[in-house]
Amino acid sequence: MIASTPDPPYYAVIFTSIGTDDMQGYERMARHMEELACQQPGFLGVESVRDDMGITVSYWKDEASIRAWKRHVEHQVAQRKGRTDWYARYHVRVARVERDQAGGREVGSPSRSGSHATAR
Amino acid sequence: MIASTPDPPYYAVIFTSIGTDDMQGYERMARHMEELACQQPGFLGVESVRDDMGITVSYWKDEASIRAWKRHVEHQVAQRKGRTDWYARYHVRVARVERDQAGGREVGSPSRSGSHATAR
Repeated sequence: MIASTPDPPYYAVIFTSIGTDDMQGYERMARHMEELACQQPGFLGVESVRDDMGITVSYWKDEASIRAWKRHVEHQVAQRKGRTDWYARYHVRVARVERDQAGGREVGSPSRSGSHATAR
Repeated sequence: MIASTPDPPYYAVIFTSIGTDDMQGYERMARHMEELACQQPGFLGVESVRDDMGITVSYWKDEASIRAWKRHVEHQVAQRKGRTDWYARYHVRVARVERDQAGGREVGSPSRSGSHATAR
């Protein structure tokens, strides 16, 4: 699902990963981490897709909420397991969202959608 | 493939979309747009995954390169076709990448990987 985020600025954590051959326990942990993330202060939404590669983008109110989530005890366990078992490679990028635009056939043109389209 | 990006800061365009029932011509155009994007000044890399939803993150040197690519004639045609035919919904977010970290089993711990890990 496309995350419904507030007007920028806010933050995005772009997590890109390539799994190993042994993904045992991964799906369950990923689901649990997503549920847990949703409950954290400052959490705004998450978008996630996986095929050969996975991309998960989570959205946060500010850097403080990202840091707090990174330090969460259960998340720390998951991160460790990811580094040692599940991910052949990963790259995590923390970015400040500065502008955005929504649209599409179901939404109509951005200027009529009520979304926060910005001139560019 | 995970994009190999330089040290931050640089920019990310996070494009999230849900397709319509009629995706005719989409794959071919998407491939062509990716090839074309790679040739643009300021392009740094791209990561893309699609299942029910698609997430494509492209990385750029600065905002000027993003704006120039947005205005590219062939890209304009693709954007129009996307808005009217291929995307039930989409959300595009332009974000400034401020810090990043790479790792994983094939890479070793971030501190030994030669990647630009930053304290957080």
